[in-house]
Amino acid sequence: MVSKNRISQIRKLHTKKFRDESGLFLVEGYKCVEMLCASDYVVEEIFATEEAIADNGWLNGKAVTVATSIDMARISTMQTPPELLAIARQRVESQIIPNEEPILALDHISDPGNLGTIVRTADWFGIRHIVCSPDCVEFYNPKVIQATMGSFTHVHLHKCPLVPFLQEAVQRRRVLGTFLNGQPVNECTFQGNDIVIIGNESNGISTEVAAAVTHRITIPSAAQDRETAESLNAAVAAAVVMYRWRGF
Amino acid sequence: MVSKNRISQIRKLHTKKFRDESGLFLVEGYKCVEMLCASDYVVEEIFATEEAIADNGWLNGKAVTVATSIDMARISTMQTPPELLAIARQRVESQIIPNEEPILALDHISDPGNLGTIVRTADWFGIRHIVCSPDCVEFYNPKVIQATMGSFTHVHLHKCPLVPFLQEAVQRRRVLGTFLNGQPVNECTFQGNDIVIIGNESNGISTEVAAAVTHRITIPSAAQDRETAESLNAAVAAAVVMYRWRGF
Repeated sequence: MVSKNRISQIRKLHTKKFRDESGLFLVEGYKCVEMLCASDYVVEEIFATEEAIADNGWLNGKAVTVATSIDMARISTMQTPPELLAIARQRVESQIIPNEEPILALDHISDPGNLGTIVRTADWFGIRHIVCSPDCVEFYNPKVIQATMGSFTHVHLHKCPLVPFLQEAVQRRRVLGTFLNGQPVNECTFQGNDIVIIGNESNGISTEVAAAVTHRITIPSAAQDRETAESLNAAVAAAVVMYRWRGF
Repeated sequence: MVSKNRISQIRKLHTKKFRDESGLFLVEGYKCVEMLCASDYVVEEIFATEEAIADNGWLNGKAVTVATSIDMARISTMQTPPELLAIARQRVESQIIPNEEPILALDHISDPGNLGTIVRTADWFGIRHIVCSPDCVEFYNPKVIQATMGSFTHVHLHKCPLVPFLQEAVQRRRVLGTFLNGQPVNECTFQGNDIVIIGNESNGISTEVAAAVTHRITIPSAAQDRETAESLNAAVAAAVVMYRWRGF
C-alpha cells in the first residue's frame, strides 16, 4: 500500500517539468525494470505487486515497496498498468564518444515511440551512441523508455546542437544524411565510425544540418515500377540504414 | 457548420462496432484524404475547414462540407484535429492474389501503429498484398489508417486464418518466417513470390503458424560482440526483411 502523498509525488514524474527538476524518471514493466536493475543506472525505488514479487526471483534482496494493482494504476503512465515500476536517477552522459564508435544523429525526432524504437534498434545492431538535437523529444519521457524495451540502459544518448557537433566531428568522420535523393544505401560502403543523421518525421533533415552532410544516402523504393509511399517512417528508415551500416 | 446530430453520427465511427456495422471508416489529415481521393475507394463525404479548402486546389469540384475547427475537434479521433477529414466505404478485397506477387503475412499484429507502419513500408518496397490473421488489429482503426500515411490506398489487406491459407499456398510458394534463430536475412536468397510471416509483438509467430513455415529467417544482431536488445519492434523487423526481399 502506497500512501496518497507518495502517489501524488510519483505522479509528478509524469511531467517533463518535474523530471527535469528532480533528475528522476519512471521505468515501467518487467523487461524495462529488469534491464534497469542490471545496468549502471541508480535505482531510487522499486514498486511491485505481490504477484510480481512472487514471480521474479531476481527481486530477492532488493528493497521493494509492495503496491496494490490500484496503487500501480495510479502511479503508472500506462493504460494497462504494469506489475513492476521503478524510479531511477537520470544518467549524465560523458560528452566524449570514442573515435572508432559509430554515431547515429537525430535531427528533431518528435514522436516518443519513434525515438524509443530507434534506441532499441540501435542496441540490436550494436550502435551505442546517439546524438539528439535539443528539439528531439525528451529521452526520459515514459513513452520513449517503454518503446526502448530496456535498451535505454545500453545506449548512450547525448543531447547537443547538431551543427557545431557535426562541424567538429567532420574532421575525423564522414557525415551521412538520409534524404529522398541520395546514393542508394545498398550501393554505399559504410565505415565503422560514420555519423548517420535521421531527420524529423514530417520535414526530414533541416537545412542547417543538411549543410554539414558530406554524403547523401537514400533507401531505395519500388518507385521505378509503380506509385509508392512518398516516405518511410523515421524509425523504419533508421533501421534499414543501421542494418546496412553494420555490414549486412 | 456541422449539425450536432451529424457530429454524433460521425463520432460513432470512432468505434469498431459501428465501423463494422456501417462498412464505413474515417480518413484524417491532408496526405491520407488526398491519397484516398486519388484511389478507387468510394468517398462518402469530405469535411474541410475554410482554410483547407482555400489551400487545396484539388478539392475543387468535389462535394465538400465546410466544418469549423470546433467541428473538426469533435468528429476527429486525433489529439490535434486535422483540417481535412473524410468518410469512406470499406473495400472488399478479392481473395485472389496473383501467383507472382509477394505476400507479407501478419500473425496477430496487435499495435495499430505497427500495422499502419508495416503497410506504409510495404507500399514503399512495392509489396501490395498483406494477409492478416483474424486476431490482427482492425485495418480500418483510425490509428492504423493514420500510420499508413495514405498507403492503405495502395496495399491490399486480406484477412483470413493463416494456417489453411499457408497450407494451400505452400504448393506454389515458399513460406518464410522471422524467428530469433533462423538463417540470417543477408545470406538468404528471396524469391519474388515468397510469403514472409511477421509475428506478434510479444510472442512472435504462433506455434500453429510456425508449423507451416518452410524457411526460418533472422535479422542478424551485434550479439556476438556484446549484450544487445533481445528483439526488434515488429514494424522494424518487417522493414529490414522487405528491404532485403526486394533485392537490395
